[in-house]
Amino acid sequence: MAANATSHSSRNKKIHFAVIGGGVIGGGWAARFLLMGYDVSVFDTAPDAERKINEVLKNARRSLPGLYEHVLPKEGQLVFCPSIAEAVRNAGWISESIPERLDIKHLAYTEIQSHCPENAIIASSTSGFKPSELQRHASNPKQIIVAHPFNPVYLLPLVELVGDAQTTEHAANILSDLGMYPLRVRKEIDAHLADRLLEAVWREGLWLINDGVATTREIDDAIRYGFGLRWAQMGMFETYRIAGGEAGMAHFIQQFGPALKWPWTKLMDVPELTDELVDKIASQSDQQSGQYSIRALERIRDDNLVGMMRALKVKDWGAGNLLNQVDQTLSVEADTFTAPPALGDSVCTTRRVVPSSWVDYNGHMNDSHYGEVFSKASDELLAGMGADQDYVSQGYSYFTVDLQISYLAECLAGDALAVFTSIMLAEGKKLKLAHEMKNAEGELCATCSQFLLHVDLNTRKSCPPRPPIAAALARLQ
Amino acid sequence: MAANATSHSSRNKKIHFAVIGGGVIGGGWAARFLLMGYDVSVFDTAPDAERKINEVLKNARRSLPGLYEHVLPKEGQLVFCPSIAEAVRNAGWISESIPERLDIKHLAYTEIQSHCPENAIIASSTSGFKPSELQRHASNPKQIIVAHPFNPVYLLPLVELVGDAQTTEHAANILSDLGMYPLRVRKEIDAHLADRLLEAVWREGLWLINDGVATTREIDDAIRYGFGLRWAQMGMFETYRIAGGEAGMAHFIQQFGPALKWPWTKLMDVPELTDELVDKIASQSDQQSGQYSIRALERIRDDNLVGMMRALKVKDWGAGNLLNQVDQTLSVEADTFTAPPALGDSVCTTRRVVPSSWVDYNGHMNDSHYGEVFSKASDELLAGMGADQDYVSQGYSYFTVDLQISYLAECLAGDALAVFTSIMLAEGKKLKLAHEMKNAEGELCATCSQFLLHVDLNTRKSCPPRPPIAAALARLQ
Repeated sequence: MAANATSHSSRNKKIHFAVIGGGVIGGGWAARFLLMGYDVSVFDTAPDAERKINEVLKNARRSLPGLYEHVLPKEGQLVFCPSIAEAVRNAGWISESIPERLDIKHLAYTEIQSHCPENAIIASSTSGFKPSELQRHASNPKQIIVAHPFNPVYLLPLVELVGDAQTTEHAANILSDLGMYPLRVRKEIDAHLADRLLEAVWREGLWLINDGVATTREIDDAIRYGFGLRWAQMGMFETYRIAGGEAGMAHFIQQFGPALKWPWTKLMDVPELTDELVDKIASQSDQQSGQYSIRALERIRDDNLVGMMRALKVKDWGAGNLLNQVDQTLSVEADTFTAPPALGDSVCTTRRVVPSSWVDYNGHMNDSHYGEVFSKASDELLAGMGADQDYVSQGYSYFTVDLQISYLAECLAGDALAVFTSIMLAEGKKLKLAHEMKNAEGELCATCSQFLLHVDLNTRKSCPPRPPIAAALARLQ
Repeated sequence: MAANATSHSSRNKKIHFAVIGGGVIGGGWAARFLLMGYDVSVFDTAPDAERKINEVLKNARRSLPGLYEHVLPKEGQLVFCPSIAEAVRNAGWISESIPERLDIKHLAYTEIQSHCPENAIIASSTSGFKPSELQRHASNPKQIIVAHPFNPVYLLPLVELVGDAQTTEHAANILSDLGMYPLRVRKEIDAHLADRLLEAVWREGLWLINDGVATTREIDDAIRYGFGLRWAQMGMFETYRIAGGEAGMAHFIQQFGPALKWPWTKLMDVPELTDELVDKIASQSDQQSGQYSIRALERIRDDNLVGMMRALKVKDWGAGNLLNQVDQTLSVEADTFTAPPALGDSVCTTRRVVPSSWVDYNGHMNDSHYGEVFSKASDELLAGMGADQDYVSQGYSYFTVDLQISYLAECLAGDALAVFTSIMLAEGKKLKLAHEMKNAEGELCATCSQFLLHVDLNTRKSCPPRPPIAAALARLQ
């Protein structure tokens, strides 16, 4: 069963972590433990193991801490050991992350178990083998479990735990302490849960390519512009629960079920949709999501999608790249300024709607997003004067130096906002803007006074504007 | 092939859109067209069709506009028609979104084609049927294509297009104009592309439930805490390209391939991994992602994951809920204040790291996120004084009224920041804070002066603080 990730209590008495096999997965484990404050010993026979782990660690350092609003514990110490014996001697958790060969794994366990503490967890990262296979010939079988993580291990929360109940419970507590999501699998099966699902898609993808129906890119696009976005936040059954609408999950299965019998794939061994199976799924779905109405789930799903797609927009990637393309068109067609205003005159720089993902616990647009709206308004004005993406790629831009916002009215999700901007001062590298933010009723929601400096992006120092901007500024006076 | 979504040029001459069958999918189409400024006619025999479409429209209005930094075109007009003939008379795009029965669809096409313009696109939302099946008996077969969208249609970009080359090209242009992602499928097959993949997972999921290995919730968790997050931004092949590391995609397939032969699933018809198939996949993958090094792809993936997980954090959902739980622990353990400071004294309210998802086109933390950091610092201080989540749920909170930020130094992704906060004034409902943001070197990055008012969340008006806060404020004086 899915462990509750609430018990972070053990953080004070930190176990020692050992990793046998420092590849992408072992390195990811090491990085996650180190950054959460645990000491880590690594054993790997590869001559470049140290370089590889340090590369993973570099990636982890630039991404994991940014997930939190608080600083992580002091980083643990990393030691490379010349033998398994030395690496595991004081370990509370030993990660076996070596290649997927059972005979090699058995050899490793023999060596590990002759030197490690009796109560240490020996956790295999295997994506395929069952605990009973791993434990064969072991002196202390219950100590060996499956703890299957997902790449990148330092970011993705999921770990599938399979094996002895007591050992996996202990493991689940440690994983929760690492900020991970331990999923205790009820029965051991080949490939556990997630890789079953992944294998099914992989096999189907291979057929599509083999038969010339699609390319790797097209299959990826079919995922990331569609159901991939749904699955990042709700998975499959909760998504289908919504699709079933008010008629419910059992109705959805009855409706969707027959498709399973159609010749849709080359793989045809389909479970019989007995009443019993339908009931089982429907009642599990009630347990999972029954506390939300379908309408509530729809709103949650939509808000999540908006937030995630907006996150991809910042990186101009996938579904976010598509949004940026539309924004360019909207910008051209918007009822906003066509030329920079004369000094002191006001123009509409931005018309936009408050995203549902901007609403905070007070039920209104969070104060920090007022700044975001004004920041975008300035971007529009600057682009209109010639300080656009081309200009930035030439190495010049404007940095904000001072900002003052007065909050006059609340803004709610879906509110239409317009920003009116005046250039108050434009002298050499100095630029001072005044913004007014109004809602659809014309009510003043906020004002902003913003002081910017023109900068050289190479020296990161202020400098006079380059010709196109200098000329635009001259025309203002 | 995947259409390039760059041609938004046709927005000025908007076609008329008709939808036959106004359920979740037809309603989603109608909402997307309406919100992008197209007029829409609906025909549906159900007595509550109007109510249902208006519900979908309500969801769409609260979510779609927030995806963009600009306002959408003026919403189109929605008309409900008493007959197919009337609905399709002037239509440029006719969406057939009726139940998945071929005989009913054929009847609908006959009626549509007797009344619609000759050059209109008749686009079926079918998730299973091939164009050749749909076109059987049609007077103008090429006019009928598959345009398969994904729920929620008003948010998810993907549309699979299958059918006549000229008609699907025309359709792709219109879909791009709607901000959608047209994927032109090379060959017609049952269930097109995405539903092939979905079916494979659905089938595997049914087995897992049937065999008592997992529940619906556990399967969903196995997806959304793991590969679902990967697939929302890169799909499957690009993800595995990274997993292959510097050794490349062909190496990954050779390594991962043997698993396909193992007894991992009950569905065993596996394509032969010939050299030819391996080369095909490897070279398609080069075409798709060869412009990025594996290291670059890793960073892109990590930044996307950070951004998406942080977006889920705002909604306290899935992987984001997990992050919030860890944050609570980190907050307790952080080296920050334990009691509110005396008036004018400074305490450390926040220690955090700049997320990679906060970096803008200037290569540094965007100015709007300075406000976010200060906003969180105030939240910490307020919570420390008793204005925590419980207090907010009782209907009281503080709203920011005025904010002034001076930007003194750039902050880069991964920079450790600390905020030191002083209470400058605490009189009745008035609270004035002064923040200083410093980096790990102790350099002052920004200062902030923030004026807040205590409010009643029901009346949305300012009011005196309630006992716990009032007492805390009294102790300050």
